[in-house]
Amino acid sequence: MTKTAAIIGGGVIGGGWAARFLLMGWDVRVFDPDPEAERKIGEVLENARRSLPGLAEVAMPNEGALSFHDTIADAVIDAIWIQESVPERLDIKQKTFAEIQAACHPGAVIGSSTSGFKPSELQTGTARPNQIMVAHPFNPVYLLPLIELVTTDANNAELIETAKGLLTGIGCYPLHVKKEIDAHIADRFLEAVWREALWLIKDGIATTEEIDNAIRYGFGIRWAQMGLFETYRVAGGEAGMKHFIAQFGPCLQWPWTKLMDVPELTDDLVDAIADQSDAQSGMHSIRELERIRDNNLVSMMRALKAQDWGAGALLKAQDARLADPVVLSDQAVRTVARAVPLDWTDYNGHMNEARYLQAFGDATDKFMELVGCDAAYIAAGNSFFTAETHIRHIDEVHAGHKIHIDTLCVMGEGKKMHLFHQMFEGDRLLATGEHMQIHVSLETRRACDPLPAVAAVIQKVAAAHALLPKPAGIGKAVGVKG
Amino acid sequence: MTKTAAIIGGGVIGGGWAARFLLMGWDVRVFDPDPEAERKIGEVLENARRSLPGLAEVAMPNEGALSFHDTIADAVIDAIWIQESVPERLDIKQKTFAEIQAACHPGAVIGSSTSGFKPSELQTGTARPNQIMVAHPFNPVYLLPLIELVTTDANNAELIETAKGLLTGIGCYPLHVKKEIDAHIADRFLEAVWREALWLIKDGIATTEEIDNAIRYGFGIRWAQMGLFETYRVAGGEAGMKHFIAQFGPCLQWPWTKLMDVPELTDDLVDAIADQSDAQSGMHSIRELERIRDNNLVSMMRALKAQDWGAGALLKAQDARLADPVVLSDQAVRTVARAVPLDWTDYNGHMNEARYLQAFGDATDKFMELVGCDAAYIAAGNSFFTAETHIRHIDEVHAGHKIHIDTLCVMGEGKKMHLFHQMFEGDRLLATGEHMQIHVSLETRRACDPLPAVAAVIQKVAAAHALLPKPAGIGKAVGVKG
Repeated sequence: MTKTAAIIGGGVIGGGWAARFLLMGWDVRVFDPDPEAERKIGEVLENARRSLPGLAEVAMPNEGALSFHDTIADAVIDAIWIQESVPERLDIKQKTFAEIQAACHPGAVIGSSTSGFKPSELQTGTARPNQIMVAHPFNPVYLLPLIELVTTDANNAELIETAKGLLTGIGCYPLHVKKEIDAHIADRFLEAVWREALWLIKDGIATTEEIDNAIRYGFGIRWAQMGLFETYRVAGGEAGMKHFIAQFGPCLQWPWTKLMDVPELTDDLVDAIADQSDAQSGMHSIRELERIRDNNLVSMMRALKAQDWGAGALLKAQDARLADPVVLSDQAVRTVARAVPLDWTDYNGHMNEARYLQAFGDATDKFMELVGCDAAYIAAGNSFFTAETHIRHIDEVHAGHKIHIDTLCVMGEGKKMHLFHQMFEGDRLLATGEHMQIHVSLETRRACDPLPAVAAVIQKVAAAHALLPKPAGIGKAVGVKG
Repeated sequence: MTKTAAIIGGGVIGGGWAARFLLMGWDVRVFDPDPEAERKIGEVLENARRSLPGLAEVAMPNEGALSFHDTIADAVIDAIWIQESVPERLDIKQKTFAEIQAACHPGAVIGSSTSGFKPSELQTGTARPNQIMVAHPFNPVYLLPLIELVTTDANNAELIETAKGLLTGIGCYPLHVKKEIDAHIADRFLEAVWREALWLIKDGIATTEEIDNAIRYGFGIRWAQMGLFETYRVAGGEAGMKHFIAQFGPCLQWPWTKLMDVPELTDDLVDAIADQSDAQSGMHSIRELERIRDNNLVSMMRALKAQDWGAGALLKAQDARLADPVVLSDQAVRTVARAVPLDWTDYNGHMNEARYLQAFGDATDKFMELVGCDAAYIAAGNSFFTAETHIRHIDEVHAGHKIHIDTLCVMGEGKKMHLFHQMFEGDRLLATGEHMQIHVSLETRRACDPLPAVAAVIQKVAAAHALLPKPAGIGKAVGVKG
């Protein structure tokens, strides 16, 4: 059954939550008194639609239904997750919780996007404290997986587990913080860095652009994949963490940071920051910067996915949860169903030719797996290598569009497995890929027959597919009409 | 003429410098009294060889010569860059500078890898203060581009410009810090975050793994591409930086960070960190973690390169500086010369089939550019699309190996341009790619003739290439012997 989320408070954060729930197949009911809310959430949703689906190597659920409501009571009907993203004032938040709890299901999760308040502060004076927890996301909410889930002893243990499961289901990583503190974990770091940055600007040491470059050309790239401690563990070398701390720890006693004081935000300092930021980024509109950011994030997260590491490992796990089971059949096999990722397009604005082959390669991998040439078979020293490929490009396709590939086994005898892939967007044929796979020993790197069980499956499916009508374009050379 | 660098002090940092200089074609002379220095630098160099060359889309210079020397005086002979990476004690550093300056060229740059000392402290009491500047790198030095170049008024302005040029030449980004402070810029942030992290562990709020996840699943990925201020500029939306500071700034007054105090590094705290780090990462050796880290960094930096942003934009600029000019010829045209990047290999351990097509696509792009279908031609609304491709995989190739592609124009008439690419490692044929390109209007997305100037060049080169011996494999269908 379709799940329902209520979004109380739109804006960038509420809109990001709405987009993530919708694209993961949830219905979303929004309450936001801002007359611009619908437009604003629409803009976030547009960004999310172009970036999120292509993060997956599998088909995403069908998008849920989005509706806007005049009252909180109306918005929370049927919701099993209610996300509060109203302004960061405790009195406003507590008033909002009272309205939510007067109308919502007592078993629903009420998550707060607060970056500063402790859950115990949010729970104080509410009808059912056990429902309310901090679920603090990071912008853009539709792409970044981290959610700080902060709970108290008042929270129901079962509901916490439910919350973790639901967050994981929409592709998030719930980091369960069991001991509440102001600002949770990540924002404490952000605060510390922000404060230091203000001093550097105030003292004229560096501009906003120089500070950004100091971060993104150096430790920022490191942190994107390993964080702080694992990075230092590697830096410390074989001597280990204790050695690293012995080396680095004493520096903490040195007068290196300005962090003992809070710099006053005078008009001069604010102007200096705003002017420097204009000089650095003013050539791009915020909308352009959002798209640049999302292109970068998607590209880097997909790069990490190919390495099965960090945020990329989360994406791989999400794919495994979302993937529809595929079985061999006497008909063409649906080996790929996915959206075109942002990083698969090129200067012509469409999917780059090499990405067609990447998708066909994925189709071949899936077909291999189905005939028994799976990870264990490969680990045991056998595999198929591609000997030849013939791609015919029939039509264009663009980022975010849904594609699928149907695969026929044209021939399977001895060392050879001859496949024919057809790539579609809906009914529209985009390309065909004809592949000759050769079975090899990974030890000798030479051709050899598949193991008997795999050979038998290939022969059986090839015999069945031989009875199907032969698609156009098989067996042609380049430049010869199909 | 080959440039020479002297590396005074090996280890992880000095070794990283050595590797970067060597792989960018410099000769490197090392002084390090550690009897293990040669082995240690060899290990860093091995990591660098597998990761750095593939960051480029063009051929790297030939690797320089590495030599080890018993005295500083011997090491600094002929060096135009001398990099000091000795232990972080001012007396040791100053003694080292004295030995260096007694033997080195007075016009050489003497860079210090210090993460904490100010250049004025390093210069004090030296024979020629104008030579000595801070050139603070980030680990792994062979991959991360940031160098904090910190100078004083004692430094010669011309030498500073020389230093910037040499750093840029080896693929680094010199961030010139003109007003010296302890710990420069980036390490002030690292200090602030490290200190906060120690408190979180000491107070039992989070483990090392939870802290790393809080960073790498959230703001870490953001910072890898935009840093702090540009990230917040986007978050602030159309209202701009002033609005953002008005919203976020006051939070600084709240008691959110523990940064007023320095936590004492008791045995208990050190043990807690070491134990948690073992639990988090102990399943991998440091050597494994280094390779995982480098795979991740290369993949993300190359992802950013495809977006021409951040550290990736630096790589693109570096390619432009390194690229050898290519011209059309009556012989096959050398359209690609590069190393196989780490992220082009797959579970079979060799270059993935889709990456062969990516390299052939790059070869096609270069050939298009040479016949006049360049960025301006495409911006004016014309391009070639690939209609068909036939790839024959002849042999395997692995990460870090040098490949090149020679391109023939088999036919060029009307809308059609028929190319035949041959990919080699040295003399070994790896694959052929036969491509039918169709000239299109980017407005109508339909086939049309090229503009006359481009058509004339294509016809001319096709006529010349028609006189060459026809390579095996042209015009064959999949499964037909070439």
